Amino acid sequence: MESVPNKVLAPRSRGVSGRTEARIAQVVGTIVDSGGKAEAFTADATMESQVVALFDFAGASGHAIDLVVFNAGNNVRHDFRTMPAELFEQTWRVATFGGFLVGREAARRLAPSGQGTIIFTGATASLRGKPPFTAFASAKAGLRSLAQSMAREFGPLGIHVAHVVIDGGIDGEKLNTAAPQLRNERGADGLLNIDAIAEAYWHLHGQHRSAWTHELDLRPFKERF
Amino acid sequence: MESVPNKVLAPRSRGVSGRTEARIAQVVGTIVDSGGKAEAFTADATMESQVVALFDFAGASGHAIDLVVFNAGNNVRHDFRTMPAELFEQTWRVATFGGFLVGREAARRLAPSGQGTIIFTGATASLRGKPPFTAFASAKAGLRSLAQSMAREFGPLGIHVAHVVIDGGIDGEKLNTAAPQLRNERGADGLLNIDAIAEAYWHLHGQHRSAWTHELDLRPFKERF
Amino acid sequence: MESVPNKVLAPRSRGVSGRTEARIAQVVGTIVDSGGKAEAFTADATMESQVVALFDFAGASGHAIDLVVFNAGNNVRHDFRTMPAELFEQTWRVATFGGFLVGREAARRLAPSGQGTIIFTGATASLRGKPPFTAFASAKAGLRSLAQSMAREFGPLGIHVAHVVIDGGIDGEKLNTAAPQLRNERGADGLLNIDAIAEAYWHLHGQHRSAWTHELDLRPFKERF
Amino acid sequence: MESVPNKVLAPRSRGVSGRTEARIAQVVGTIVDSGGKAEAFTADATMESQVVALFDFAGASGHAIDLVVFNAGNNVRHDFRTMPAELFEQTWRVATFGGFLVGREAARRLAPSGQGTIIFTGATASLRGKPPFTAFASAKAGLRSLAQSMAREFGPLGIHVAHVVIDGGIDGEKLNTAAPQLRNERGADGLLNIDAIAEAYWHLHGQHRSAWTHELDLRPFKERF
Repeated sequence: MESVPNKVLAPRSRGVSGRTEARIAQVVGTIVDSGGKAEAFTADATMESQVVALFDFAGASGHAIDLVVFNAGNNVRHDFRTMPAELFEQTWRVATFGGFLVGREAARRLAPSGQGTIIFTGATASLRGKPPFTAFASAKAGLRSLAQSMAREFGPLGIHVAHVVIDGGIDGEKLNTAAPQLRNERGADGLLNIDAIAEAYWHLHGQHRSAWTHELDLRPFKERF
Repeated sequence: MESVPNKVLAPRSRGVSGRTEARIAQVVGTIVDSGGKAEAFTADATMESQVVALFDFAGASGHAIDLVVFNAGNNVRHDFRTMPAELFEQTWRVATFGGFLVGREAARRLAPSGQGTIIFTGATASLRGKPPFTAFASAKAGLRSLAQSMAREFGPLGIHVAHVVIDGGIDGEKLNTAAPQLRNERGADGLLNIDAIAEAYWHLHGQHRSAWTHELDLRPFKERF
Repeated sequence: MESVPNKVLAPRSRGVSGRTEARIAQVVGTIVDSGGKAEAFTADATMESQVVALFDFAGASGHAIDLVVFNAGNNVRHDFRTMPAELFEQTWRVATFGGFLVGREAARRLAPSGQGTIIFTGATASLRGKPPFTAFASAKAGLRSLAQSMAREFGPLGIHVAHVVIDGGIDGEKLNTAAPQLRNERGADGLLNIDAIAEAYWHLHGQHRSAWTHELDLRPFKERF
Repeated sequence: MESVPNKVLAPRSRGVSGRTEARIAQVVGTIVDSGGKAEAFTADATMESQVVALFDFAGASGHAIDLVVFNAGNNVRHDFRTMPAELFEQTWRVATFGGFLVGREAARRLAPSGQGTIIFTGATASLRGKPPFTAFASAKAGLRSLAQSMAREFGPLGIHVAHVVIDGGIDGEKLNTAAPQLRNERGADGLLNIDAIAEAYWHLHGQHRSAWTHELDLRPFKERF
C-alpha cells in the first residue's frame, strides 16, 4: 500500500510503569524474554511529580516517545448511600486525574514533534452510569470526556488521541485470580484476550493520519450488550 | 386529571445555599419579597461536613425535604498543556464531587420516605468534551454519569433523579456581568430565561411517577446545536 | 411568572386522526364528553395525499394549527433471517415515512406564522438497536434523526420540534388487551399513565422559547434502564 | 501471537457489486492488475431479487463468503419543506433498505458456518440529524440501528457485525470530481485515504473474536468534530 506511508512501527523500547515494582518487573521480564526491550519505572499515576519524572525518564533514554497508553482504573463497587467520600474521590483520582496527568505530560512531549499516539483505556461504564459502579462510572465518564477534548485539541497538531471501550472481562491475572470460575463459565473466547486487545491498540497506533479512529469498543463475540 | 394524583407542589419553605452569604441572602430576599418563605444557609458544596450540616439544618426545620437542586459548577476555560493540576482537580471538586456529596446526603434523607426529587444541572459539555473546556467537560460528564447511576438506584425507591442539560447562555446576573453585550447580540429570548428554567425543574418535580423524565435539554430556540 | 409570557394554552379544538374510523371517533367522544372540542379525520399517515388532506382540513377549520403530535409506529418483533422485506419496509413506512409526511406538512403550515410545536413520539428503540425489534428500532432511529434535523432547521424559525422517548409499557387499551397480566405484574404506576404522558407533551408545548427541550425520556419510576 | 489464532486472511477472490457495470469493471480491473482475483456482478442493492442473486452467485463460486461490506448511500442535501416524498424514500431505500437486504442475505449465508464479517459504512450523519442532510441522516441512523441489532443477534453466533462512521471527505473519484478544489483546501491527508479506510476494514475482519469492535470512527487528523 505505497500510497499510505504508515508510521514505522518499531519502537526501540517499551517503558512499563505502575505503582508496584514486582508487577512491572514481571511485565518487563515477559517483554525481554520474548526478545523485546523494556524498562521499568515505578510511579503512581495520581502523583503529579511522579508522572513528570516518568516522562522525564522516558525522554532521557534518548529516543522519542511515540505511544503512550493509560490503563489505570479500579472497577470498585459500592452501595451509594454508605459510600465514603474518600472512595468516590480516590476512584476519580486513579481513573481520571491520573489520566489527566499522563495525558498532559504526553501532550507536552509529543506536541513539538507533531506525531505520536495517546490511548486511554475506557470501559462500558464510560458510557453509562449504573449502580453499584457509581464511582467508577463517573470517573470513567470523566476520562472519556478528557480523551475527547484532547483528540479535538491535539489531532490537528498530529497527535492521535484514542479511547478504547473495553466491554467485558479481561482474560488476565487480575480477573482470573478474583473470579477463577469465570473463564470456564464464559467458554472459549468469552473473555477478552490480552494479546487481542494489544493488537487493537497497535492498529490504532499504526493508522494513517488521514483516517484516525478516536473511539472503538472491544468485546467478546458472545458478550451481551 | 383525577387519575394522576400529582404530588402536592406547595413546599412550605425553600432552603437556599451557596458559599457567599451576601448572594444567597439576596436570593432569599427575592423569594420572601414575592410572598414565599426561604431560609439561607451558607455552605461550600465541596466540603463534606458543610453539606451534611446543610441537610441537618434543612431536616431540623421540621418539614420533609422534597426537592433538591444541585447547580454548582464553573465553566472554566484553559489551554490544556499549561493547565495546572489544581485547576483540573478544583473543577471536578465543585461540579462532580460537590454533586456527589449533595446527591448522597439527599438520597440518605429521601430514601426512607420513598419520595422526593433530586435535580442536577448539566451542560452541553456533559455530553461532549471540547477544548478549551476540557476540565469543565470532564467534570460535567462525571456528574452526568453520577446522576444516571443514582436514577437507576433510587428511582425504584421512589426518588426521582433528573439531569438537565442547559445548552446556551443563561440570562442572569453572572453572564450579563461577564458579557454584557451578549444579551443584545443574541436578540429576544436568545439567552435562557431563568424563570423558564425554573419552570422546567418544577415540572420535573411534579411529574407523575409512572412517567418520569431522567434527562432533558433546555436551549434557546435560536441556539445552534 | 410575568417575565415569561407563555403561549396561551387554550386551543379551540383538537384534530384527531388515525386509520380506523371507530377508534378515532372514540377518542373524539372522550374529549367532547369531558367538555372539549375535537374533530375526527380518518387518514393513513403513510399516504402523502391523505396527510396533505388532513392538514388542509385542519387549516380550513379557521384557526391556526399550533400543536402537532405524531404517534404512529408498530413495535413489531421478528426474527431477522426470516424477516420479509415487506415487513422491514412497512415498519419504516409507518414510523419514519409517516413522520416525514406529517412533519413536512406541519413545518410547511407552521413556518409562516413562526410558532407552533411538533412532537414526535419515540421509544427506547430509537436509541438502541436490539433484536427481535430490529425493524422497529431502525425505523425509530430514523424518526429520531428526522426530529433532530427538523429541530435544528425550524427552531430558529420559531417552531418547537421535540422527540419524546417512551421507555416502558403504556397503560392503555392496546397493551392491556395484548398483555392483560402486565398491569398487575408491574404494580402501581409500573406502566406509563396516558394522562401523565399527555401532561409532559403539554408542558413541552407550553415551554418558553428561550428554554426549549428537544428531547426527554419518560419511564415508570421502577422501570429498569 | 500464538495464543490468538487469527482467521486466515486470504480470501481467494473478491466479489465487486454495484449498479453501474463500467464502474465495477474498473474496480475489478484494479484488483486484477495488482495481482488479486475479483469478479464483477452488477446488482442494485435496493432490489431484493438482485441482492439474493448476488449472494447466490458468490456462493456458487465454490468458496465460502467471509467478508461482506455494504457501502451504498447518497449524501443528498435538500431543503426540508420542498423535499419530495420520493427523495426521502429513495434515500432510505439505498442506504437503509439496501443495507437490510444485504445484511439479511449475508446473515443467512454466514450463520450456518458460524463465522464471517459484515461491515456497514456509516457517516457522521448516522449519529446526528442536521439539515440539509435530513433525509440522508435519517437513513443512516436507520442503518446504524440495523447494524447494532444485527451485532447483538449474530455476534454470539460467530458473525462479526461492525459499523464504521466515516467522518470526513473521502479522497476518491467521487469527491474529487464533485469538488476538485477540496483536496488542496484540506491539505495533506485532509481527506480520508481510501487505502487507509480499507486497512481499517481489513483490521476489523481480522480481529480475534474475543475482542471484536462493533463501531469505530475514521476521520482525517485535522477534521473538526
